[in-house]
Formats: sequence, structure tokens, C-alpha cells
Amino acid sequence: MKKSLGPHPFALPAPVWVVGTYGENKKPNIMTAAWGGICCSSPPCLTISLQKQRASYNNILTNKAFTINIPSQHQVIEADYVGIISGKDEDKFVATGLTPIASQVVNAPYIQEFPLILECRLLQTIEIGVHTQFIGEIINVLAEEKVLGENGLPLLTKVNPPIFSPSERAYYEVGEYVGKSHSMGLVLKK
Amino acid sequence: MKKSLGPHPFALPAPVWVVGTYGENKKPNIMTAAWGGICCSSPPCLTISLQKQRASYNNILTNKAFTINIPSQHQVIEADYVGIISGKDEDKFVATGLTPIASQVVNAPYIQEFPLILECRLLQTIEIGVHTQFIGEIINVLAEEKVLGENGLPLLTKVNPPIFSPSERAYYEVGEYVGKSHSMGLVLKK
Repeated sequence: MKKSLGPHPFALPAPVWVVGTYGENKKPNIMTAAWGGICCSSPPCLTISLQKQRASYNNILTNKAFTINIPSQHQVIEADYVGIISGKDEDKFVATGLTPIASQVVNAPYIQEFPLILECRLLQTIEIGVHTQFIGEIINVLAEEKVLGENGLPLLTKVNPPIFSPSERAYYEVGEYVGKSHSMGLVLKK
Repeated sequence: MKKSLGPHPFALPAPVWVVGTYGENKKPNIMTAAWGGICCSSPPCLTISLQKQRASYNNILTNKAFTINIPSQHQVIEADYVGIISGKDEDKFVATGLTPIASQVVNAPYIQEFPLILECRLLQTIEIGVHTQFIGEIINVLAEEKVLGENGLPLLTKVNPPIFSPSERAYYEVGEYVGKSHSMGLVLKK
């Protein structure tokens, strides 16, 4: 039996992405965003949505660039902190002990300690409601060698990112491997 | 040490969402999409990206509506199957044994057996590259009572959706509860 809950952003699961940008005088800033996802395979693109009052909002519009920094489970406290505090009030790199590194391909900093980085150039800006959506073209992916599988691609269990549950505002771990996509379902083919 | 992997849509984690639409003569269709995410809190909105050759693409444009059906882990084979086969070739409800139910609030069907449903009306259509992004306003959320927590909201471990890893094209389970967002990070506050 289904219960009607009304209009809520309860789409599961959501990511925990830390957005890296430059502010005035190229001061690095980071903030956490859970409203986002991949939006195109070619060119590879992703979206993140931010509210206008965020320091990162103007930073992206000014520099036409941002990085998405994907934390590992042991970095969830740092990722949560930079989503609570404003970069207008505090240097979040100092507060967390994380290290900003200048991207070589876009005008934005990334976080040295995080295992997986997507370097993005701003492609489109879409007004929706209280959030503005930024579509970024993924110019390059940077990954710690230790999170790569035998085929040289990032493995979810090695990156081990926190999973966000919007309806509970809570973080979860990644669980067990289930199987290959575009493959498991073929058992139903007549 | 970070390795440069080039441009790829390797943003982790991604969802496993089944999009419900009506085709000609109100024939229900479903397809799986992993390119999507929440994009606004108010009005609550989400995005999904589809390629133009998909039957669901025209269905959304015609009806200005779709549902997002979130499977539970034991439904991953059905969810994978409806991402492989085209609705132009086969009735996917017959093939999977899933049951289409008419939404009461938007012109689209949802899947009776799936635990969490988001009923969406089309708000914007954004051309990006090989994928087109549809922004849908979440008009209502339907949830099986058994996936709700004590506060009446869906719990990630009870919905228990598969998690998609784009770099491996593989599914994973949800793991253990970690902690509350907007809270865990406060231990870093001076």
C-alpha cells in the first residue's frame, strides 16, 4: 500500500560532492553539494545546483569553472563541515586541514586529499527555483592510483564515497558488489 | 599520487531510476536512467537525461510528465532489463511482470511493485550533447508504508535501492548508516 507524502526532493540515492572554486584574489573555496548528477555522456557533463547566496555561486559564474571533489568515507566529517560553514566567514581549507591544488585544465582548485576529482568548465546556467543549476563539462578526471581497478578505472568500493539520503539528511556507506549493468537483466530476455 | 584519466562521466555514486511514461494510445513504458539527480529544493525538482532515440524521450515531450520509480535491491534484474531493451520492440511490463498504475497527479504511469515513486511534471528541456536533460517538478512522492521510518519519511536502508557505479557499469548495495548531515562536521568548528 502506497502512502502519499506530498512534494519533496526524496530521490535516492544522492551524492556527496565538494565543489572547488576560486574567489576574489584566487582564494580557494569549497562547499558540499548533494543536488547533482551526471547529465550527458558526450561531452561528459555533470550538474550541481547551488543557491545564489553561496560564495561558490559567484565564484563559478566569474571563473566559468569548478571542480567536483569526491571524498572517501573517512573524509565525511570534512565534507559535512564545508557544507555547513560559509566561505564568506572562514577559510575552509585552514579549518579542515585540506590542501588546495591548482587544476592544470580549468580555473579552479581541487582537494589534494580526496581520491576522485572531476575538473569542469561551465557550459550552461539554468534558473529553476531557489537553486540554480550549473552544467559543467568534465574536461578531465583525476584519480588516486590506489582507487583504480585492474582496468585502470575507478572502483566504487575503493573510492568508497559517502552516500547521501535526502529524506533523512544522513550519510551511509557503500555496500557489497551486486553485478554488471546492461547484463544482469538479460536473464529476462525471451 | 593522482593519475589523469581524461574526460569521462565518472562521478560517483549514480542512481538507478526507472522512468515511467505513456506512449501512443496511453501505452505504459519504462526505461532505466542513471544520468540524473535532484536539482532544486523549492519547488522540489529532479533531472534525468535521455537520448533522442529512446521511446521515453518523445513520450515525455508529448505528455509533459514522467514518474521516477526507485527499485529495491531485489528488483535490480527488472531495473537492468528495462534499460537494455527498447519499448519500441517489446512491452516491458509484460516481460518483467511489473504492473503499471496510472498516476493521479501527472499523465504518466508508475510501477506498483517499486517502493518509492516521484511523480513529475516536465518543467524544462535542456539540450546538452548526445543527452537531453529533462527537469521535472516533483508534484508528489508515493512510498510503500514499510519503507517509512518513525518520522514518516523514507529510510535509505528500507528502500534499499541499488547504487550505480558509472566507471564500472556495475551495481552495488547500500551499506551501513554513518551519521547525520549538517551535524557530523560540527566537531571541526572552533
